[in-house]
Amino acid sequence: MKQEYRVRFEPSGRTVFVLPNTTLFEAAARAGIVLQSPCGGRGSCGKCRVRVVQGGCDPSEACVRLLGETETRSGMRLACQARVCNDCVVDVPAASLFESRTRILTEGAESGVDVDPAITRHTVQLPPPVSGDDTSDLRRLEQALGRRVHVHLDVMRGFPERLRSAGFRGAAVLCEDRLIAFEPGETPGECYGVAFDLGTTTIVGGLMDCTGGGEVAVAARMNPQVAHGDDVISRIMQVREDPGALERLQQEAGEALNGLIAELCTQAGISRDRIYEATLAGNTTMQHLFCGISPAALGEVPFPPAYHRALHLQARETGLEIHPNGRLYVFPNIGGFVGGDTVAGILATGLHRAERPSMLVDIGTNGEIVLAHEGRLLATSTAAGPAFEGARIRAGMRATDGAIEKVVLNHSDISYNVIGNTAPAGICGTALIDLAATLLRAGLLDSTGRLLGPDEAPARVPTALKERLHENDGNVDFLIVPAAESGTGEAIYLYQRDVRELQLASGAIRAGILILLRRAGLEPDDLDTVLLAGGFGNFIRRSNARRIGLLPPLPTQRIRFVGNAAGMGAKAALLNRAARATAERIAESAEHVDLSLDPEFQMEFGMAMLFPETD
Amino acid sequence: MKQEYRVRFEPSGRTVFVLPNTTLFEAAARAGIVLQSPCGGRGSCGKCRVRVVQGGCDPSEACVRLLGETETRSGMRLACQARVCNDCVVDVPAASLFESRTRILTEGAESGVDVDPAITRHTVQLPPPVSGDDTSDLRRLEQALGRRVHVHLDVMRGFPERLRSAGFRGAAVLCEDRLIAFEPGETPGECYGVAFDLGTTTIVGGLMDCTGGGEVAVAARMNPQVAHGDDVISRIMQVREDPGALERLQQEAGEALNGLIAELCTQAGISRDRIYEATLAGNTTMQHLFCGISPAALGEVPFPPAYHRALHLQARETGLEIHPNGRLYVFPNIGGFVGGDTVAGILATGLHRAERPSMLVDIGTNGEIVLAHEGRLLATSTAAGPAFEGARIRAGMRATDGAIEKVVLNHSDISYNVIGNTAPAGICGTALIDLAATLLRAGLLDSTGRLLGPDEAPARVPTALKERLHENDGNVDFLIVPAAESGTGEAIYLYQRDVRELQLASGAIRAGILILLRRAGLEPDDLDTVLLAGGFGNFIRRSNARRIGLLPPLPTQRIRFVGNAAGMGAKAALLNRAARATAERIAESAEHVDLSLDPEFQMEFGMAMLFPETD
Repeated sequence: MKQEYRVRFEPSGRTVFVLPNTTLFEAAARAGIVLQSPCGGRGSCGKCRVRVVQGGCDPSEACVRLLGETETRSGMRLACQARVCNDCVVDVPAASLFESRTRILTEGAESGVDVDPAITRHTVQLPPPVSGDDTSDLRRLEQALGRRVHVHLDVMRGFPERLRSAGFRGAAVLCEDRLIAFEPGETPGECYGVAFDLGTTTIVGGLMDCTGGGEVAVAARMNPQVAHGDDVISRIMQVREDPGALERLQQEAGEALNGLIAELCTQAGISRDRIYEATLAGNTTMQHLFCGISPAALGEVPFPPAYHRALHLQARETGLEIHPNGRLYVFPNIGGFVGGDTVAGILATGLHRAERPSMLVDIGTNGEIVLAHEGRLLATSTAAGPAFEGARIRAGMRATDGAIEKVVLNHSDISYNVIGNTAPAGICGTALIDLAATLLRAGLLDSTGRLLGPDEAPARVPTALKERLHENDGNVDFLIVPAAESGTGEAIYLYQRDVRELQLASGAIRAGILILLRRAGLEPDDLDTVLLAGGFGNFIRRSNARRIGLLPPLPTQRIRFVGNAAGMGAKAALLNRAARATAERIAESAEHVDLSLDPEFQMEFGMAMLFPETD
Repeated sequence: MKQEYRVRFEPSGRTVFVLPNTTLFEAAARAGIVLQSPCGGRGSCGKCRVRVVQGGCDPSEACVRLLGETETRSGMRLACQARVCNDCVVDVPAASLFESRTRILTEGAESGVDVDPAITRHTVQLPPPVSGDDTSDLRRLEQALGRRVHVHLDVMRGFPERLRSAGFRGAAVLCEDRLIAFEPGETPGECYGVAFDLGTTTIVGGLMDCTGGGEVAVAARMNPQVAHGDDVISRIMQVREDPGALERLQQEAGEALNGLIAELCTQAGISRDRIYEATLAGNTTMQHLFCGISPAALGEVPFPPAYHRALHLQARETGLEIHPNGRLYVFPNIGGFVGGDTVAGILATGLHRAERPSMLVDIGTNGEIVLAHEGRLLATSTAAGPAFEGARIRAGMRATDGAIEKVVLNHSDISYNVIGNTAPAGICGTALIDLAATLLRAGLLDSTGRLLGPDEAPARVPTALKERLHENDGNVDFLIVPAAESGTGEAIYLYQRDVRELQLASGAIRAGILILLRRAGLEPDDLDTVLLAGGFGNFIRRSNARRIGLLPPLPTQRIRFVGNAAGMGAKAALLNRAARATAERIAESAEHVDLSLDPEFQMEFGMAMLFPETD
């Protein structure tokens, strides 16, 4: 049943294999390329245009309507409308990239992030001291810069020698009004920063050019702390129980970030001494651990963090290996489980300035949900558990090579897509949602989450599908891949238990969404926009997520992918000083809703575990 | 010829030996006790009153007039008027101590320093987190303190545990709005700071109680850097020539300060962890060296310092061993050779607010002179050389045990006083001035600085005195102590060469004073007050200093001793936050006069080397 097409995206060269009829938008997302989509995939805004330079991808009517005959004939397509029908090569214009603009909710007002970084580099030629002018070295520099600067002792030390080593010519590097380096002589004008999204599972680093604002390199790796447990709670518990754990966890995170820095430097061919600042957005626990601040109190009611405002640190205090006097900005927290990554996500999407009711949902082990309504920001987190990451699912796995990431009903049977175009080894979260939605629509899964036996299946169900239902010890399991087609040699099933895990995960998110809406006196339909953030949110099929009740019953156009919003926020803070003040205001003003204290949460959660009766 | 009386001062117990007729004021100064003297020793203000509780010290008329018969009979004396005529014990009331008030020029307006230190200690009981209140630990503290605080990462680390270790009770120690420590539980309310006067030769440290403002302990020691040369120039040259010298000199100063801290802690019986801040006033070179900032540029025209504003440091960055997160304030500089000690001295004396023309003179190896006139501050420094410290004088020595510190003409011959009441080993700077003045008055020294031979001596010169003139290789030397009376077994002379050295030292100071006056359009007689600061200035006989031309021809009442003004300024900065802003303004506004650029300096210097013809 497996037939996939290869799609290569230029200029990145990233290649993915997708099922027939997959939109170019989805294929790009799978390749890690998030395209703009202000219309929500309606085919009406024309912002996601790409050019098919080779191979097949039929245009839709919307393509011709919006782009014109000539452009369409030359291969231009609306990515959200054009569907892959053969191997192809697609050129992605920079203007179509989502990350080229942030604050998507206010894009009319503002396009992208103005490049006004905290880090600035100033080439100066100071008048050397002459008889009669005993102005101090520092004041001499201040006069050349036209402003007063603060100096750390370790920069002050050596400053006189550096000044004199190249005839009072050189580059002063400032972080805001703080002198962090003076580089004598003629030096290249390079000036970089690195923005980190420090996730519980994955760490992503983006090397940014602080002069032009562009991303120079990007790299990601697993958070090595996962060896100590999938979720934040297990790491918090370790710190509570083992006196050496805090230092160990801190060190591991530090090494991972330093590894990423090394990788980014190699990619870009630069020295790490040219990186003068890092920004870091992570959940509250990750930020605490990285800074070596105990998150132990996050392990008991009422889960108070140690700090709330942003931290402005010397990078080396945390062991981060950038320029020896480089700076580190750590995002402010909203609460114990609504951390800097959420603040960064709000910042990047402009949620805090939404004019109509809007919601940001980051689906992960810990689901963070923020509702913006009439100037208020209500933020909560809900423990979805690791089902979406493939954990606690018997054949579950992360979205890596060998994972079935998508399942569709194709005529009379299912088709699936495997990451890396290899034989399947298991299923990841997105496919889990696809499967459950498909089975619900087919009538093989009831709203309580019970898989029906072959005998109970409605008559209209195609035989091929029905034959995938296998009874086992009183439960029914659904065969996805027979042993012969499996990469592991063992058949891959969706087990009844897996459906229960999905219900728990989905129900937690759903209940969180509903309670925030209720707090604001809103119904789901009042939502103008739901923004899906995070690595996972970016890959789900909206209609399927809606079918299982993970997302509210809204037209898909109102549900928009925003990619790695936390990472974008970290970049915004790196490239724009004002963004930091905004982040502080967001964290200050957001109202933290503790679901565990909501008297209706348990009931809401129980109800939300039931799948909706209909689409 | 030697007859001295022992004077013990209570409550300090300090004892000195002085010549008959020495004023109690001078005896106290020699014992390191500076008394108030707003009237300049005129006997008219009554501020220097002390009580003679034992032994003999005849009252003067002024004593009876100001203190009344009863008080005088009970032993009360004006220290500036009463002269020692026997061994005695003297009780010094705290109110008579000079250091109990600073800003002597404006004492009418303000008495003493308000205790409003940067360091404050706040005992707090925070509401422990309860369900529904996930306020961060830091915000909880901020709410209890009623203000927002900045926190270093290393204080933030460990803060959650410390908070919880004693039920959210403890003491927060702030430096301005910076949280530098949180001490859990019930802790003693102690809170100390240490004020350093870091001199080229001597380092003095005062341990201050930051809650009450009192001095708890005081200690002094030699600056170990003297091993590398007496003056700042020799140390600057070392740094210029030897790559390892900066680190070595820094280390030596650091060890000396840490030794003083240890000594102060022992004296006061406290732990060094209770010292949360240090302030440091030194000349520009000393401050640079202590901070590890190269003073190499101070070794060549135009002698620019590396920095000018005050440094606000973490004490441990400089190796200073107080509380691990303690702070260090280093005074701002006016110029390469007019440093933080001068700023501190201006601050302590209130010179910047003088309403009439006033001058601060700190006589040392490097003489610093500041003139205040109509809101302007003119500051300069002049290389007097080490003659006043006893160096380059053949029988010269520092003012320590065995040094002749005072010489008077007693009937027909000289008498002298030796520090420590031992046999004399040499002469120190004050005695050098006394001798020169005495010989000038006797007509044995002419205004060009030539010692007259026994044959040239005026007829009126007593024989005993004349017999002390010994011709030697065409020069005349003056015998002070014959070999038989000398502690070293060798006779002690004032050599013709020594007089030349004195002329150089005195002329440099005098020329500096005159040039500042000329810049301001003033004559010496326009000076309302001359403040003599520094260890040396405190011991000189004003009339003798005036006789040799070191000080301008002013009534002695206008010449006032202000003791260790730099040290007092360091204490003021420790005890009063506003004093730091004042210090910054002083350094900013003072006009630095570089004598070497003054076209008239050389001529003025040459003229000033001549002794005045008459008193």
